[in-house]
Amino acid sequence: MRPSGRAPDQMRELRFEPGFTKHAEGACLVSFGETRVLVTASVEEKVPPFLRGKGQGWVTAEYGMLPRATHTRGNREAAKGKQSGRTQEIQRLIGRSLRAVVDLSKLGERQIVIDCDVIQADGGTRTASISGAWVALRIAADKLLASGALTVDPIVTQVAAVSCGIYEGTPVLDLDYIEDSSAHSDGNFVLTGDGAIVEAQLTAEGATFDEEGLLRLLRLAKIGCSDIFAAQLKAAGK
Amino acid sequence: MRPSGRAPDQMRELRFEPGFTKHAEGACLVSFGETRVLVTASVEEKVPPFLRGKGQGWVTAEYGMLPRATHTRGNREAAKGKQSGRTQEIQRLIGRSLRAVVDLSKLGERQIVIDCDVIQADGGTRTASISGAWVALRIAADKLLASGALTVDPIVTQVAAVSCGIYEGTPVLDLDYIEDSSAHSDGNFVLTGDGAIVEAQLTAEGATFDEEGLLRLLRLAKIGCSDIFAAQLKAAGK
Amino acid sequence: MRPSGRAPDQMRELRFEPGFTKHAEGACLVSFGETRVLVTASVEEKVPPFLRGKGQGWVTAEYGMLPRATHTRGNREAAKGKQSGRTQEIQRLIGRSLRAVVDLSKLGERQIVIDCDVIQADGGTRTASISGAWVALRIAADKLLASGALTVDPIVTQVAAVSCGIYEGTPVLDLDYIEDSSAHSDGNFVLTGDGAIVEAQLTAEGATFDEEGLLRLLRLAKIGCSDIFAAQLKAAGK
Amino acid sequence: MRPSGRAPDQMRELRFEPGFTKHAEGACLVSFGETRVLVTASVEEKVPPFLRGKGQGWVTAEYGMLPRATHTRGNREAAKGKQSGRTQEIQRLIGRSLRAVVDLSKLGERQIVIDCDVIQADGGTRTASISGAWVALRIAADKLLASGALTVDPIVTQVAAVSCGIYEGTPVLDLDYIEDSSAHSDGNFVLTGDGAIVEAQLTAEGATFDEEGLLRLLRLAKIGCSDIFAAQLKAAGK
Amino acid sequence: MRPSGRAPDQMRELRFEPGFTKHAEGACLVSFGETRVLVTASVEEKVPPFLRGKGQGWVTAEYGMLPRATHTRGNREAAKGKQSGRTQEIQRLIGRSLRAVVDLSKLGERQIVIDCDVIQADGGTRTASISGAWVALRIAADKLLASGALTVDPIVTQVAAVSCGIYEGTPVLDLDYIEDSSAHSDGNFVLTGDGAIVEAQLTAEGATFDEEGLLRLLRLAKIGCSDIFAAQLKAAGK
Amino acid sequence: MRPSGRAPDQMRELRFEPGFTKHAEGACLVSFGETRVLVTASVEEKVPPFLRGKGQGWVTAEYGMLPRATHTRGNREAAKGKQSGRTQEIQRLIGRSLRAVVDLSKLGERQIVIDCDVIQADGGTRTASISGAWVALRIAADKLLASGALTVDPIVTQVAAVSCGIYEGTPVLDLDYIEDSSAHSDGNFVLTGDGAIVEAQLTAEGATFDEEGLLRLLRLAKIGCSDIFAAQLKAAGK
Repeated sequence: MRPSGRAPDQMRELRFEPGFTKHAEGACLVSFGETRVLVTASVEEKVPPFLRGKGQGWVTAEYGMLPRATHTRGNREAAKGKQSGRTQEIQRLIGRSLRAVVDLSKLGERQIVIDCDVIQADGGTRTASISGAWVALRIAADKLLASGALTVDPIVTQVAAVSCGIYEGTPVLDLDYIEDSSAHSDGNFVLTGDGAIVEAQLTAEGATFDEEGLLRLLRLAKIGCSDIFAAQLKAAGK
Repeated sequence: MRPSGRAPDQMRELRFEPGFTKHAEGACLVSFGETRVLVTASVEEKVPPFLRGKGQGWVTAEYGMLPRATHTRGNREAAKGKQSGRTQEIQRLIGRSLRAVVDLSKLGERQIVIDCDVIQADGGTRTASISGAWVALRIAADKLLASGALTVDPIVTQVAAVSCGIYEGTPVLDLDYIEDSSAHSDGNFVLTGDGAIVEAQLTAEGATFDEEGLLRLLRLAKIGCSDIFAAQLKAAGK
Repeated sequence: MRPSGRAPDQMRELRFEPGFTKHAEGACLVSFGETRVLVTASVEEKVPPFLRGKGQGWVTAEYGMLPRATHTRGNREAAKGKQSGRTQEIQRLIGRSLRAVVDLSKLGERQIVIDCDVIQADGGTRTASISGAWVALRIAADKLLASGALTVDPIVTQVAAVSCGIYEGTPVLDLDYIEDSSAHSDGNFVLTGDGAIVEAQLTAEGATFDEEGLLRLLRLAKIGCSDIFAAQLKAAGK
Repeated sequence: MRPSGRAPDQMRELRFEPGFTKHAEGACLVSFGETRVLVTASVEEKVPPFLRGKGQGWVTAEYGMLPRATHTRGNREAAKGKQSGRTQEIQRLIGRSLRAVVDLSKLGERQIVIDCDVIQADGGTRTASISGAWVALRIAADKLLASGALTVDPIVTQVAAVSCGIYEGTPVLDLDYIEDSSAHSDGNFVLTGDGAIVEAQLTAEGATFDEEGLLRLLRLAKIGCSDIFAAQLKAAGK
Repeated sequence: MRPSGRAPDQMRELRFEPGFTKHAEGACLVSFGETRVLVTASVEEKVPPFLRGKGQGWVTAEYGMLPRATHTRGNREAAKGKQSGRTQEIQRLIGRSLRAVVDLSKLGERQIVIDCDVIQADGGTRTASISGAWVALRIAADKLLASGALTVDPIVTQVAAVSCGIYEGTPVLDLDYIEDSSAHSDGNFVLTGDGAIVEAQLTAEGATFDEEGLLRLLRLAKIGCSDIFAAQLKAAGK
Repeated sequence: MRPSGRAPDQMRELRFEPGFTKHAEGACLVSFGETRVLVTASVEEKVPPFLRGKGQGWVTAEYGMLPRATHTRGNREAAKGKQSGRTQEIQRLIGRSLRAVVDLSKLGERQIVIDCDVIQADGGTRTASISGAWVALRIAADKLLASGALTVDPIVTQVAAVSCGIYEGTPVLDLDYIEDSSAHSDGNFVLTGDGAIVEAQLTAEGATFDEEGLLRLLRLAKIGCSDIFAAQLKAAGK
């Protein structure tokens, strides 16, 4: 039995609150159960140096966790003077995941910066971030299309992410903090709207898994992402 | 006329949402109109090195602004690798303001860390932070009292803060972003529950003011803080 | 009785030694009693990025303390790799104070950088810095006027600063280190040549003060600044 | 056809040169074709703070690239003052991979630090690092066993890593730089001596892959790791 | 002819003003002509970690340059967040030079930190620093001897430093800024009270020199140091 | 007797392995006995800002030590976030030494960056670095000459470096780690192909030396550099 009483292939309650803050071109407060991440998409009329003059755009992401988003207070990265390896790993993953579903050549020479700030953490902050980021990005792109700044939609399809792992011997979907802390193997899958894999990251801590295990986790991920895709569309008003 | 249509001595709508996040010993989402700050109070059973073994506690504060809390995106301080002078100035002010109403000798050898993270900025983020911090601190202290960790209340009185300034020649209370951008002189007052001054900071940019102007701003601040004190008590369930 | 035997409204001995070093366009060693600060004004024929092409100038300030300017040696900020929050707060205050009396549009596209380095500290280093900075700035501007680089004087009026506080129940002027260490409430006032307020910062540590207290400190500040204004003019050869 | 003329399931020439340097308890120069990484294992009689007094050991890894290991010179991370996100991601992966095959409770309160420094890069530096690290670790553990510092072997099994990817439509093993630069999807697999998965990381850049693709890459990885396991044993003198 | 009109073996005017500041155990403002350095010696009742419990003391040095000590303003190292290679090189040299004439075993477990801050630079700041540091150290040691904290004098002999170089083909002593800028070869010699060499650093920029040239510079250095030794003794009241 | 059994004026075995790595325009693994340094010369078609548009080139150097190049592991400078003073001192010395034998005006507006990375340390890493750097530079320049990018040779003569010191009372050449650790006085000499001095750095730790001692060390250095010059030419195929 899962601590939350959920079925093995059951997601936590999903919530996408578009427009949670007002300044960003796209904004969304995403909740995977008790995990809550504020995602904003900021449109900037410039690109990073390596893309200047190439006629294409860029999508990048930054990630942060409020100091007391967690059970015990973590040190503020701004005060420590550097971002942890974990933070950098996550923000690189978010950026790659989004770029996989954006046709950068249709974006023009502009950059969309995604900020994912974890307000409250209960496992799965990176998967909630990616899933919420698509909604913020969608809203920002719609705004650019509505204003005429863009004439064709640069977003090719949806993207969502979810974690899966082996909890007490059973493959389960969307691990919360308690499950995550004791899972021997877990992974994150980033899938596109049509179920293809964009990213897969699996780690066996103190255990290992085989081909069969890998496939079972992937199948759970597909189930979870279906739910997320539906909720994303609704939140984005599609 | 103020852009918002408010009377000169009228605060923006005040909102204190205690318990906005669940992990911290005290938490509060404070809104001064469109300015929204998430404040948490974290109790740590240790004190900074300079206080070890002295039998007293400490209250300190950190402040941050989400990158897109503002009209245009600001760089993330964690990514830049340092906190700006403005950030440090504000967090020092918040810490001093709270310590002014806490009897540290009654806190035992523990530290309460206040985190103020601006979710959305529209002027007055430091005054909203101080005002919300008192609520988070009050909740955390109540929890320590309820659990028996504390037997006497270390909080001596309330503390609140509000900005005032001269907008188009008229002294006004609680400036929003538009007013703040064009005000020639403004200041922040931190007052205690009985109206005494804890901190006062006044700056005349491109103009100056005299004794009379200083007193008019102080009187507006007292009006504003009365409203805040009432709202704080209600939020803290007193 | 004050430890120094001074009357409550009596400044420490003021000394301004213009030209203490030779390379800077303006230089002054200012002493408020035993507090000594070397201030230089460096003219640079460029402006910060945010002002480029706007046809106006800029005045900014940096502040530092020699490691053994104080009773016990402090760590060198260059060795620690960052400036403290206190340092940043002070240098921002110095910069704002000077800009309040300079018409930046008359400066042309050039920047004057004020460096305030504390040689010996005995309380009031920031107020001595601001007061000395005006002299260094005045000398530098005179040099620009003499050379024809400037044709109209960009300095509108004088600016000076002084601290005041409640020492053992009595409001006193220009606190030295001993007084400063035990004062319950103190503040720094920055005033213009005609007595108007440019900046006021008051802090009540462990105590509070009221409207009446605030006004008494301000009146002391006006007395102190009168003395400083006279000494500044003499030092600048006016 | 692969640029190197290799068959799709063919590794580059593998070379492990144990004892390439003399000071470290374990050392190995590993070559995957033209990719060469110097790996050292340093035994330290202390553990990180979070493990003190817990009676167990730790294995951690650091990774670096000599500035001109690459086609064009990269900036030295020591000169830039920080390690890139990529570097941190890789060194975290190396550490996790090794810990997966070490019984830390059998290591005693000591730490083994693995340093992987890329002398020459031609694709697959992280997989060469992990594979070579096992040899350095094995040599260091043998030294501890021989000296009596350890009485039971803490290394549970072998660990090796290899990359796979889709190059011009064909799944291929152990990508070199040319292949890596143009592959649309690739991944790194870390496998144990008995073929179980310890880590899997797959990224589809500009393309995606499905379940079938994932399995084909995994099967290639198993082939590659068999070769590596054999070469590791030989190098370690088993 | 030298720009200053000095003879080739003539030092600039030497001045040592002991007690220039009051807080440090030893202090001295040293002038080599227009080069002026404030040196303080701070006694700390602790040693660096690597010497703890070894019953001996330590002498170390830090060096800094005020931003406008030079012809054009240099960036403040505290603001840049790091000390330049030049600064580190100089402070290491100062520390080694002083330790060469101190019997650390007679110092007890205490550290003397020398701070050399250049108030005005005109060539030879490192040699002035070393020469002045001996005076500050001497004063601090005398204070420790007078107070009974030390019973035997840990300072073995005097140490002084001076620069020499080939200016327009002629070997000259104690180069000022103009000479230093155009000298093809120059060096710094650190000598003890009896004329032995503690440190010698020679650099030929764009030229080279031979054995004979080396010896001629060394002989000039001996002449210069004689003058410095005499002035040091007088300043230290010996 | 020297621990290695060498004669006082005998170098360790010298080895220069050109082309040790393949990407750099010039590369060389230099060994002075057990001290091994990988040196690369990277040609970049740009110059540092202070030389832009001046029609001349630049040669600069960076130095690093692999963490376990030494007897006990040193912390990685990239992980610590800064280069030590020792590292900066050495890389500045390498750069100056090479520039002394290059006619920068013949290099065109390009920069050659020398990277010296110590693979294994046993004393004399800086002298091995300089000596090996000349070989890497020579190879890179030959490549530029062969390709027609350069038409005249910018390298004026050879440069080499070697250490000398007083070991147990006897002046010896090319100190290894054991000798270096106990030598009371030592120095590094950088000489040109015709025996002239480019740099000389001598330090007497706990002892001093006189004119005669200085000359004896210099004469040893000339002997050592003769050997190095011959080996360099052979390695560079001259």
